[in-house]
Amino acid sequence: MTRDAGFDDVEYLLDGFETVETVNDFRERLRSGRPLNVKLGIDPTSPDLHLGFMVVLSKLQRFAEAGHRVTWIIGDFTARIGDPSGKNATRPQLTPEAIDANMNTYRRQAEKVLDLERISVRYNSEWLDRLDLADLIKLLSKTTVAQMLERNDFSNRYRSGAAISLHEFLYPVAQAYDSIAVEADVELGGSDQLFNLLLGRHYQREYGQQPQICATVPLLVGLDGEKKMSKSLGNYVGIDEAPEQQFGKLMSIADSLVPTYARLAAFRSQADCDRMAAEISGGSVNPMVVKKDVAESIVARYHGAAAGSAARDHFERTVQRKELPQTDLAEYDVPHGTRIGEVLVRAGLAESKRAAERLISGNGVKIDGIVVNDPRGAWTAETAVLSVGSRKFVRVRAQKE
Amino acid sequence: MTRDAGFDDVEYLLDGFETVETVNDFRERLRSGRPLNVKLGIDPTSPDLHLGFMVVLSKLQRFAEAGHRVTWIIGDFTARIGDPSGKNATRPQLTPEAIDANMNTYRRQAEKVLDLERISVRYNSEWLDRLDLADLIKLLSKTTVAQMLERNDFSNRYRSGAAISLHEFLYPVAQAYDSIAVEADVELGGSDQLFNLLLGRHYQREYGQQPQICATVPLLVGLDGEKKMSKSLGNYVGIDEAPEQQFGKLMSIADSLVPTYARLAAFRSQADCDRMAAEISGGSVNPMVVKKDVAESIVARYHGAAAGSAARDHFERTVQRKELPQTDLAEYDVPHGTRIGEVLVRAGLAESKRAAERLISGNGVKIDGIVVNDPRGAWTAETAVLSVGSRKFVRVRAQKE
Repeated sequence: MTRDAGFDDVEYLLDGFETVETVNDFRERLRSGRPLNVKLGIDPTSPDLHLGFMVVLSKLQRFAEAGHRVTWIIGDFTARIGDPSGKNATRPQLTPEAIDANMNTYRRQAEKVLDLERISVRYNSEWLDRLDLADLIKLLSKTTVAQMLERNDFSNRYRSGAAISLHEFLYPVAQAYDSIAVEADVELGGSDQLFNLLLGRHYQREYGQQPQICATVPLLVGLDGEKKMSKSLGNYVGIDEAPEQQFGKLMSIADSLVPTYARLAAFRSQADCDRMAAEISGGSVNPMVVKKDVAESIVARYHGAAAGSAARDHFERTVQRKELPQTDLAEYDVPHGTRIGEVLVRAGLAESKRAAERLISGNGVKIDGIVVNDPRGAWTAETAVLSVGSRKFVRVRAQKE
Repeated sequence: MTRDAGFDDVEYLLDGFETVETVNDFRERLRSGRPLNVKLGIDPTSPDLHLGFMVVLSKLQRFAEAGHRVTWIIGDFTARIGDPSGKNATRPQLTPEAIDANMNTYRRQAEKVLDLERISVRYNSEWLDRLDLADLIKLLSKTTVAQMLERNDFSNRYRSGAAISLHEFLYPVAQAYDSIAVEADVELGGSDQLFNLLLGRHYQREYGQQPQICATVPLLVGLDGEKKMSKSLGNYVGIDEAPEQQFGKLMSIADSLVPTYARLAAFRSQADCDRMAAEISGGSVNPMVVKKDVAESIVARYHGAAAGSAARDHFERTVQRKELPQTDLAEYDVPHGTRIGEVLVRAGLAESKRAAERLISGNGVKIDGIVVNDPRGAWTAETAVLSVGSRKFVRVRAQKE
């Protein structure tokens, strides 16, 4: 039997995961030579994918390519029920038709990263509908209240006195039971899903199965650089958004985030991203240029190469240049790597470094039309237009030291 | 429509309950004139009844007599499942046949107090078997983890770090759902069941029913005078025990407990029991005599009047007199109400009052063959044999002051 390249290449398959519980289990399981059952649970209530979702799908693709059996488990069972307490707006009650429509949308977006021909799809109602109360009692007897309350989300809510309805304990248990149903060898998820994945491992052991390997990917931080990318926070780049919109959003991230996005959204290698981070912080590259390259390759993945380059052109034409006045600008030379606050003072755009930092914090300072995020950032452009507000512009040139 | 006497006699029906949630609800419900659905949940795992169980059955009888609809709900559903974690030995898994056998035993004992012709019986598997997972999720969504952990038993275990398996939360919820299923107007139980009864009230409200009145009876303290009467503690009088055995056990309770047993086990009125307590503590009656009367009436209820009086005779003949020596005893006169410790000193059976109290605390002192429990008790018998150990005996006579 021939295998696809990478079938038992542990390093390749586990590249880029945040936690793997456990690598030794995984190594041993691969040695058996049989294709592994790799599970990803999908919530059919949120069909509009953003870049954050694609991280785990890109990992799944490696398992599929390598010849393992990848299964999407669609959580239709709980989606059909929704949140009967009515307190949780993120758990609406969905009809089977709505679930199917959502999954079609999901598939169309996911296939930009994942070869869907290699994926099998199961709906968890297939086995959860069949459980009766006696089965459920057996299921629930295998875990304790303290175990559930250890989950970060629950323990915070319990401590703060926020209500946790009893049925909320059922959702992770149902997800864990999915692992038993499909005899998962490996479950993938975001790092915020680690508890649920480990519960699956626990349940498989309780039900006499070999416990699954739990592999989690890092969470992609949103455009704000602070919180997990999520629709409700508005700090996301949607897969279905227009190329120009995606590009513009990606250009708004802090320079320091560019290597992270290169890794998790453009799927560059860790080595490439480490090099990029060193070059940006060392000032040997213009972060604006690197950011455009990363943004272009992300847009190209979801809309094609032509759309990627067109989005870049559009950005440069309309956003970067539109505010530049047509008159000649005063010019200043500064040593390469000078702090931007210092540059503002030298160019007479701020009275002091502290005043300059306040302007930057207030989003009033731009370089070539792009807002400067970091009050302590350094000047790295060879030559660019520095502006404060909509009326003060100078041209700055970096001198090599 | 004619009603049995007492149909809407609130005072009569609620006489002797420890908590009633709420009396106003109850009063209003009775005004409707329709027979109320009165529910008692029965655990079919413990068929051998003791006096502690009969307290609530005696209350149920009043509702039945008064023409209300009394229903026993037999918790066969959970009994059939048992405790799947295997950790709780008090929840064995029972077959339907075992459950039926247990219930026959239960009925035979219960009918000493309750007119079973007036009772209807339902098995809760009738509705719990029909719940699917979606129903259950809805059910569980109506209560919170914090609510469950408020229950005394759970909160103590949670605080002490003892494991609470998730399915244990289901049992009170299932019991609460029983109230919805039979549309209970009133649920009766022991005071340790108050949480479960109130959960039924809560659930009925959530499901749009008028919430049941929760009425709890006091727990009968065991023969040790300290803990709730229970088989596992061995401090019980079983309904099926032989008359002599029941009588002997009842004679071992402390004098101060006699009024409590008169109330909760012999079903005497509160007024009678208050008078009895005053007479015992005031020394105007011999507690031994009163205790024999109470014990006889309890035995008579479960074995008939002849057996009650025969058990008393047997006790007097074999227990009380057997240790009395046939020789003439030294006789002492003491003022009525003298402390027994003082009597022991006067009769030369102890060297000091403190030594006398130690003898009493060590269960070494008997009056007419019955161990004296209270080191500070008073002499109230007209004439009786006082003994220390198995060899020192005197006869003591009380002088009227």
